[in-house]
Formats: sequence, C-alpha cells, structure tokens
Amino acid sequence: MSVPQHEIQDRIARLQHKCVEQGIDGCLITQNVDLYYFTGSMQTGYAFIPAQGEPVYFVRRSLTRAAQESHVRVEPLGSFRQFGETLAAHFPHAFASTRPVLATEFDVLPVQLYQRFVELLPPSTQWVDGSMLVRETRMVKSAYEVAAIRKAAQLADAALEDAASYICEGMTELELMSRIEYTFRMQGHHGIMRMRGYNQEIITGMVGSGAAAAEPSYFDGPAGGRGLSAAVPQSSSRKPIAAGEPILLDIGCNIEGYVIDQTRTLCIGKLDAALQTAYNLSEAIIRRTEEQLKPGTIAETLYFQALEMAKEGGLEAHFMGFAADQVKFLGHGIGLEIDELPVLARGFAYPLQPGMVIAVEPKFTFPGRGVVGIENSYLITDTGFEKLTISREGIITI
Amino acid sequence: MSVPQHEIQDRIARLQHKCVEQGIDGCLITQNVDLYYFTGSMQTGYAFIPAQGEPVYFVRRSLTRAAQESHVRVEPLGSFRQFGETLAAHFPHAFASTRPVLATEFDVLPVQLYQRFVELLPPSTQWVDGSMLVRETRMVKSAYEVAAIRKAAQLADAALEDAASYICEGMTELELMSRIEYTFRMQGHHGIMRMRGYNQEIITGMVGSGAAAAEPSYFDGPAGGRGLSAAVPQSSSRKPIAAGEPILLDIGCNIEGYVIDQTRTLCIGKLDAALQTAYNLSEAIIRRTEEQLKPGTIAETLYFQALEMAKEGGLEAHFMGFAADQVKFLGHGIGLEIDELPVLARGFAYPLQPGMVIAVEPKFTFPGRGVVGIENSYLITDTGFEKLTISREGIITI
Repeated sequence: MSVPQHEIQDRIARLQHKCVEQGIDGCLITQNVDLYYFTGSMQTGYAFIPAQGEPVYFVRRSLTRAAQESHVRVEPLGSFRQFGETLAAHFPHAFASTRPVLATEFDVLPVQLYQRFVELLPPSTQWVDGSMLVRETRMVKSAYEVAAIRKAAQLADAALEDAASYICEGMTELELMSRIEYTFRMQGHHGIMRMRGYNQEIITGMVGSGAAAAEPSYFDGPAGGRGLSAAVPQSSSRKPIAAGEPILLDIGCNIEGYVIDQTRTLCIGKLDAALQTAYNLSEAIIRRTEEQLKPGTIAETLYFQALEMAKEGGLEAHFMGFAADQVKFLGHGIGLEIDELPVLARGFAYPLQPGMVIAVEPKFTFPGRGVVGIENSYLITDTGFEKLTISREGIITI
Repeated sequence: MSVPQHEIQDRIARLQHKCVEQGIDGCLITQNVDLYYFTGSMQTGYAFIPAQGEPVYFVRRSLTRAAQESHVRVEPLGSFRQFGETLAAHFPHAFASTRPVLATEFDVLPVQLYQRFVELLPPSTQWVDGSMLVRETRMVKSAYEVAAIRKAAQLADAALEDAASYICEGMTELELMSRIEYTFRMQGHHGIMRMRGYNQEIITGMVGSGAAAAEPSYFDGPAGGRGLSAAVPQSSSRKPIAAGEPILLDIGCNIEGYVIDQTRTLCIGKLDAALQTAYNLSEAIIRRTEEQLKPGTIAETLYFQALEMAKEGGLEAHFMGFAADQVKFLGHGIGLEIDELPVLARGFAYPLQPGMVIAVEPKFTFPGRGVVGIENSYLITDTGFEKLTISREGIITI
C-alpha cells in the first residue's frame, strides 16, 4: 500500500500555506520520515518544497526506487557541490529576493550537514528553523493515516491477548517481550519504531514487572524499564515475573510506518489495595480526559487537570514517574513517530483539532513495587473522539 | 555486566591525548552512544571532558541511575540556561584562554541544540567538529569490547543454524526473519541496533531471497532488501522463499551494546552456475583480504584490491550492489554502532591497528535474481587477525 497521490498533494499544500503565512520562501526537507511524509518515498536525498509551485525530490540513492514510490518529481541529486546552483536553477522564484528565507529541520538535522548547506547555498540565504512548521503539518492526520494506526491498534490488542494467555509466574520479562515482538513481527510490524527527539530510542515498548518497571530511566516517558544493560537502559530485563505484582505491558508496533502506543496493567493473582487504588485513579483520569477530548480543548489543560486529580488522590509524587524522575506530560501525539504533536504538557497551547491522534497515559510509579496505569490512543473527531485502542480495560487478572 | 572503571579511564585518557595534540581545550559529549562510551551510563545529559583533568557528566534524568552506572563524576545538570556558567565554574582551565576551543559531535548533534550551546557558552568559544576525534577514539576496541562482540557472534551463529533448520519453500522472508529475531531476543539481544549516519537505520539485518534481496535501496550497504512498505524500505518482505534462488541472511544482534554483522548465502536445492561463480568470487575476495588483515595495511587498499578482483572476474557491475545503486566500500568497523571506523573505502587511509574490528562483506547483486556473498567480522591482532564470525562458510544448501 503506497501513500495516495492526493494525500501528498494535500500535505504539500498545507506546508506551503504555512510558508506563505510565515514569509518562508521554501523548505529543504532532509530527514527520512519527513521525506516519506512529503513524497511517499524514503530514499537518500533532499526534497525542496517552494512556498509556491512544484517541489522536487533530489535523490542520491536509490533513484530507481524513489522514482517508483515518490509522488513528487524526482531528479538525480548529482554533484552535491553543485547543489546550491541546482536549487537556484530549479527554483528561481524562491531565490529571487535579495534575502531568501529557507526553513529546514533544525531539531534533527546534524550541524555537519547544515554547515554544508550553508556553504553551498547562496550566502544571502536566511536560514530559519522549520521544525515546528513540519511537525505542525504532520500533527493532523488524514483518514489514510488513521487507517494504518487503527490496523496497528488491532495488532496491539491481539499481542496483548496472546501475552495474557502465555504469561506465567517465573517467566522473565524478556521472554514475554520476545513473544510479543514475534507476534507483532509475524503480522507485519516493521521491526523498528521511530522517535524524533535527539538520543531518544524506543524498542517495541516493554514488559515491566514489579520493581523493574519502576526503575528510574532517561526514557522520555513515565516508565522506561530496567533493560538488559546500561548500554540500552530501557525496556524489559531478565527479571522473573512474580505473582501479586503489577505487570505493565506498554507495547506498540509499526504498521506501514505508523505506530500505536497502548498500555495495560496485568497481575498474576491479586494486586494489593494501594496499587489497585492508584490504578483506579489512572482510569478515572482517562475518563475525565475523554470528557474533554474534542475540538477546541487546549492541550495543556488536560495535563493540568490530570495533575490536579493525582494531587486530590494524594498520589502526586507517584504520578508519571516518581519524584525527581517524573515526566511532566499526560500524553503525546503519535503517527510516523511516537513523539509527535500535540504534547499534553505545559506550554502546548494547541486547541485540539479533528484528525489529531493522541496517546493518553496516566501512570503511577511506586519504587520497589511497580508501575500501574493505562494508555489509550484517541482520534479527535468533529464532535469528540474515537478510541483507537480496542483492548479491554481494567486490571487484567491472570 | 558494566563497563570496567579502568576501561573508562583509558578511553578518556586517549581522547584527552588527542585533544592536547589538536589544540582542543575540551570535548562536550552529547550523543547517547558517546556518553555511554565515555561514562558507562546513557542517561539524559552532557559530559564535559577537558583536555586535562577530571571530566563531569551533567545529568538531567535519571540522576539516580547515572550515579549508579557512571564511572565519571555525576552532577545534576540544573538549569540549562545556566549551563555556560556551570561549565566555566567547573573547568576554569579549559575556559582560561581568550579563545577556548571546544569540540562536539557535529555529525550527529542537531542544529537546534548546537545553537543553544553557542548561545549559552562564552561568546569567545571557538567550536570545532569533534566527530572524528570521538570516532577515532572508539575505532580501537579493548578486550572487554571484543568479548561482547564475540558473544554476539556466537548468537549469530546459533540463529543462522536455527534458521537453516527451520527454513522451507514457501515460507516468507518475514516469517524467517521473525524467527531469527525471536531467537536473538530470547538470548539477550537488546532489540535495537544502532547506526550513526543521519537517517540511517537498521533492523536486525535481513532475510533477502531472490529478486527481493536485489532491489535497489537507500540503505548504506550492498543489499538493503525490499522491506514491508515504502515507510521502512529495507529488510525482509512478504515474498515467499523459492527453491533454487539465493537466500541472503545478513543478520546481526546487539549484546551489551555491541553489534555483530555477518552474512551467509543459503539455497534450497541447487544454485545456478553463474550465481555460484559469483559466490565463489566473494569467498576468493575474502581470502585475499584476510592475507592483508594485519597491522599496517592501509584500509582503502582492501577495497581497491577487491574491486580489481571483481573486474578480473567480469563482475564489476554487480559488485556491492548493481550499477548506479552500488556502494563504494568493502567493509566497515563495528562496535557500539554498525557504521564505525575504519571504512574499507577510498579516502580512508588508516593503517590497520590491533584492536580494530571490521566487517568485510564482498557481495554480488543480480537484479531480478538475487544477491550472493559472504560477510565475516574480524579483529585485527598484533600479528594478523582473528575471525570473530564462527559460522560455517560456503553456500548453505538446504
């Protein structure tokens, strides 16, 4: 299944509209995921999208494959040293002003490559950060994109149910995680998931049981997991799963480039009362959040509201990680990457819009004991939301 | 297993030696893999390594975990806005000159974060690209590092033999790949492998059969594979494996941060004569290469020699990809990342040194028919080499 042509045209038109609004003459797209989003292909090269007119995808390799996949005109990149001349020749309009303004993805583009562009393009070029321009264009999903996420959600549910039937006392986190990943991969999971943030990585999520799930982590989420070594300090460890402890299954997969993110809490036997209370609060938060999931709600208010509920429940220090290791958000956009806009956090004043897809993940961390919580992914619709996650809620008792 | 303390001290001493030689006052280490290499921990933060004296790892999150793992002194990052003052206060010597020279990883550091550093640090700072400094320090491996790679090589062999016993006609590439990944993961593979190059990604390698293996690819290797969709255009596809076609198992795993990379060619039944001849040439190239795998050999000469052999065999157009989609190298260093130094390619004039670990991968691509070849990983020793790859050679006939 390839990206429909009208979809690519619409994406480019939306980016161009923003360019015109912001006085930008053109966007130089360099990152693989952004290239795929705007062309339908992910080969090595750079796409130039002028504020007006037809874009070009300059490809180094593989030109053949790019020509098959891209809905944007493909041309050979040719000599990189001539790239400035190539661009100026193709886009006289964009370079017509005495001080052309070009945007590129400062959030991901490495300094070395950026400095080459600065060297090669006309010295009059004024470079600006196009990260938000690109990320905001990608923030609102089409029906085509939502269809892929919906498919990924079905796989996540199947993997969860399979894991629930497979899990047993004494099995290690890693054994259960291996099984989940195998289930995903056999069904068409791409084998990698993508994060945009510098140094951020994600595996297929994690099985995190008891104390191992509650270990502090660099990972930009409420629970990262102990991991197998300090070299990849996240996800599942070799800890055996015990009865009576919370088992967090925070799992995701990548279908046709699109990711899903969902969490369920399992327990072999009975969870103790304090953890059950915390779990119940996570469900209460997600229900209260759902009431606000509709066009116009300001993203950050959902975080404030959740934080208020955690405080009222006396669990503020445990909310979204413990104490100094807490993260300060309630959820995040998902799409081609797992860390998309909008973030449900202070400073993100976006009003929700139809087409946004957001993972909401209230969780509570108890050092030495475990993490409990729930995470659903939602599509914002014209009138409210559609829950894309189809898995059953509540503690899943084994 | 954590990185031994003396190991970290040695790495820092080698970097500092290079800094002094190159007139650099200090290195600001920002990338997760480099942080792990120089501290033993991979939490969110930045390490400052002065040309002389003790480094500090400034950590945002998780401070607790960094303090447990790091052999470098850990301090809270505190307010990022004050980072310039923090550094100047900790490292008066490095900032003593009127024009302190600081190196950082321009090959991976995004422009946005770099601009923040430029803003926050003294305006007199002269920033230089420290990529090669860091990569050259990491190029020579210790016994500790080689031990992890050796372990990964054993797992790769076990996964290969398991795959050879499991494979059958009609099975899809994806089914076999899922099985290989499951085998790896159960044995402690971290679930991700790392590449340093911008936009480069790798899964666990690939099962590539017949025409699917030979499809052109952006992937920076001789064969990338068809993949499941244009969104992740590499690795295995849903193509069923047929008898009589070459099946490339280019697989790797990540053990305690360290990767292995090996390739074997399999065939259900008999391979046709032309492909067998090409395979034989790949083995002849690897044997000739082995004769030169010893201290003092200049890295690029191994590529030239292999290219010459491909020409003599009349297979130049098929060597390391086909025609316009060829890559221009014979091998690459491996370690914490799969694309390390030295590269066996034009322009890499490094003399081989004891401790280098290099994957050598002569392969031949036949569009519509498949890819044949072999890939072994080698350690350069004082007198020659040790083959780290332990798998049997020759076409593996099923």
